[in-house]
Amino acid sequence: MNVIVDLCVVPMGVGVSVSPQVAACQRVIEASGLSHRMHAYGTNLEGPWDEVMAVVKRCHEVVHEMGAPRITSTLKLGTRVDRDQSMDDKVASVERLLDPGREPEV
Amino acid sequence: MNVIVDLCVVPMGVGVSVSPQVAACQRVIEASGLSHRMHAYGTNLEGPWDEVMAVVKRCHEVVHEMGAPRITSTLKLGTRVDRDQSMDDKVASVERLLDPGREPEV
Amino acid sequence: MNVIVDLCVVPMGVGVSVSPQVAACQRVIEASGLSHRMHAYGTNLEGPWDEVMAVVKRCHEVVHEMGAPRITSTLKLGTRVDRDQSMDDKVASVERLLDPGREPEV
Amino acid sequence: MNVIVDLCVVPMGVGVSVSPQVAACQRVIEASGLSHRMHAYGTNLEGPWDEVMAVVKRCHEVVHEMGAPRITSTLKLGTRVDRDQSMDDKVASVERLLDPGREPEV
Repeated sequence: MNVIVDLCVVPMGVGVSVSPQVAACQRVIEASGLSHRMHAYGTNLEGPWDEVMAVVKRCHEVVHEMGAPRITSTLKLGTRVDRDQSMDDKVASVERLLDPGREPEV
Repeated sequence: MNVIVDLCVVPMGVGVSVSPQVAACQRVIEASGLSHRMHAYGTNLEGPWDEVMAVVKRCHEVVHEMGAPRITSTLKLGTRVDRDQSMDDKVASVERLLDPGREPEV
Repeated sequence: MNVIVDLCVVPMGVGVSVSPQVAACQRVIEASGLSHRMHAYGTNLEGPWDEVMAVVKRCHEVVHEMGAPRITSTLKLGTRVDRDQSMDDKVASVERLLDPGREPEV
Repeated sequence: MNVIVDLCVVPMGVGVSVSPQVAACQRVIEASGLSHRMHAYGTNLEGPWDEVMAVVKRCHEVVHEMGAPRITSTLKLGTRVDRDQSMDDKVASVERLLDPGREPEV
């Protein structure tokens, strides 16, 4: 079972700036080899369920190891069994409706 | 590492009523033996990280087995390493502030 | 348009304990007169869209006034136009499936 | 009070494909003139609180007008009063840590 997730890790008790912890999570995600894309309020990530969830767990472990006493994360989890669908497919299917004349990218 | 989560499973492509799928998830959660409490927009669940995540995965599997082609879930994940804190502790610490004269429950 | 929401306000830059800020949000919610119920990872709240959203905004304002430089909240928003459904209806429809022999509460 | 949100609108009772409804929300967002960026699991949007929230409400109204009997959305809401921070700033502050040698974009 593949899953597309959107992960947002929020360390608590470390002050107002959390970019060092978010960057550490990005390194965990990059090291996983899974397809991913960061945005301004989280990171999209896709792959086999267990691999993706191991990344989420590792992010919590790494942020605690950096000294954060407490973490609250939000995770959206999308699975489907009717057909394969990647993160790029999801965006492309909306963009086709917004701009029907657009040439498909190859 | 213990985690307190809030899980909300939304089956898609099954019509407007999703209570059969939500009830099936509740049965998965009850069968796990983990501490949990349902509310109007999800279910709180607490325990060791891997056990809680196995429940989340099993919920997706069961809802797909019931015929849902697609699922989108939201999950909040709270961990802390400074001290133990249960779901009941979280609620009690807020209630103490709201009503300082209240006798502690025993 | 009525809405059922689940609100979780997370102040950042105020240290590891956030119960004073969560309690302040509960007071905002109680003062609104809207139907609500706190759980271990947020608060359910229901009513007309604009009234509910005014409460969410007031929670952010109050928590900033208490000194939090930064807030990240998560909000689930449920609307339906096919029929009225309260928070209690949602829970009851699942509980009926879990325990069909249960007498309805009056 | 400015806010950066991440909005994910999920229509229920309309079948398994929801890209027409997501595209309609994108049109609402584009018509607002607010800064925004779609990703594979939602859309980032920033601006004054009331303007952003009017967009969220209009998305629910439009998706119901398209025939969806029920909607569940997730919204992350970030506010800060210590300094201005745009969606681009948030991403840039993480990318600087990931790649310190990178020349700043102009």
